[in-house]
Amino acid sequence: MAPGTDSATRITPGNALRPEDIALEVRTGLAKPTEDVAEYALRLGDDGLILAQRLGHWISRGPELEEDVALGNIALDQLGHARSFLTYAGACLGQDGTVKTEDELAYFRREHEFRSAAIFEQPNGDFAATIARQFVVSYYQFELYRRLTQSTDATLAAIAAKAVKEVDYHRDHSAQWVLRLAGGTDESRARMIRGLQQMWPYVAELFADDELTNRLAETGAAVEPSALKADFDRLTGEILEEAELEVPDVAAAPGGGRQGQHSEHLGYLLAEMQVLAREYPGASW
Amino acid sequence: MAPGTDSATRITPGNALRPEDIALEVRTGLAKPTEDVAEYALRLGDDGLILAQRLGHWISRGPELEEDVALGNIALDQLGHARSFLTYAGACLGQDGTVKTEDELAYFRREHEFRSAAIFEQPNGDFAATIARQFVVSYYQFELYRRLTQSTDATLAAIAAKAVKEVDYHRDHSAQWVLRLAGGTDESRARMIRGLQQMWPYVAELFADDELTNRLAETGAAVEPSALKADFDRLTGEILEEAELEVPDVAAAPGGGRQGQHSEHLGYLLAEMQVLAREYPGASW
Repeated sequence: MAPGTDSATRITPGNALRPEDIALEVRTGLAKPTEDVAEYALRLGDDGLILAQRLGHWISRGPELEEDVALGNIALDQLGHARSFLTYAGACLGQDGTVKTEDELAYFRREHEFRSAAIFEQPNGDFAATIARQFVVSYYQFELYRRLTQSTDATLAAIAAKAVKEVDYHRDHSAQWVLRLAGGTDESRARMIRGLQQMWPYVAELFADDELTNRLAETGAAVEPSALKADFDRLTGEILEEAELEVPDVAAAPGGGRQGQHSEHLGYLLAEMQVLAREYPGASW
Repeated sequence: MAPGTDSATRITPGNALRPEDIALEVRTGLAKPTEDVAEYALRLGDDGLILAQRLGHWISRGPELEEDVALGNIALDQLGHARSFLTYAGACLGQDGTVKTEDELAYFRREHEFRSAAIFEQPNGDFAATIARQFVVSYYQFELYRRLTQSTDATLAAIAAKAVKEVDYHRDHSAQWVLRLAGGTDESRARMIRGLQQMWPYVAELFADDELTNRLAETGAAVEPSALKADFDRLTGEILEEAELEVPDVAAAPGGGRQGQHSEHLGYLLAEMQVLAREYPGASW
């Protein structure tokens, strides 16, 4: 905040909001989510956190060095969104009104306490599978964040306003790769098709309403996930058509991530993510 | 370059030079290193490339989410420098005057063709070991790049001018962590001490002159590594003294990285880094 500005909050949509800003608002009591909003922020934060860990693996391991930088940047964007959502969620999740930090939420929850949807924990697979996951995720996140900028919850709206700009780039990045792989060699096209088939069973979960999202939609804090589906279908469909690819005709996977039911992948991912913080809980790093 | 500017080259020190800019200069013949400069650029590029891969592993695995972002950003900075150096080196390394791309150099060389110093391939170990490696590396790189901005080779000077600003931040980041870990708990202090002891044997190699650096120093294209040592010792010494730590009293490791002799660590690292590109060489990703 510029010196001399004495606005009570810097959380206004469009600000380049940092997680540290939200932490400050949370500590000083300026930002306080309802229990429903906190649970919702946890879902979105976990999505970004898990995806960031998956994508970080690609640094120096992509098919091109330029691409490593791109995936690394996307990972850091997702981690940034996750930090903001988790910090906000933590304002309401502690015992007896205490605040839980982003680090406590990331490193000291168990698998069944994570609320990410299944697609985010799917293994990287080959590069085409990673791109297929990214294609689904970024088109979903774009539609979600775009609407969340209008949330009646000012903090959700502010986080979304920053995130939607970054996710718009992620969307373009993944679409370009879908087209490039589909239009490349027989091998790259076959891999792109297989990648989409691997990821598409996890699409349905992203757009499933439940009691929480119903309540949030009533207050205007969030939109129902099902309301995003038509735009998602239309826009991903346009890219797939341009790539001369079919929308995969696969059965939906069971889901359950929003209620803490996860595949075995998440357990391994968390083990690796949490080992350092758990070995020395409370250590003054 | 701004429209209307008709300068023959945008490679002037201080520009925010991208690897793509160098690739363009290389392809159009505007930038062409001597064989010595190309070999030297290969060394510096390999240093950054190998370090980037090591650091990328920390995304979502650090002791704090904020720290994951910091290490991720450092990894991407190092990868950026590597891409520029490798692109420039490639202008002179192809057969019969052809150009080798950064991707060819990163993904299709064998272990003995890499020219990185041993410290860059050292395993991450625990967080304190990673910080110790980063402390040594960033103080070394800062002194090196600072002087390279005055290189008689305009491209080396331009790459260094961009890199030195970023490495200055890396230096501050690692110094703050050395102080924090040394001044934290008994455990964090013990780990910091052990980390420094693990990494210090690889310091000497960074400052060893050889025939190549002697020749480059004569032409003013580079400085002799030994000329950086006094400043490195003084500045790292100040931080270690503030942290109440001793300069580790350990024997120097054999070295040999600049001539392609590497520890077994590099083989594993390259296997992981190169697998994708090698499985489908020339695939139109």
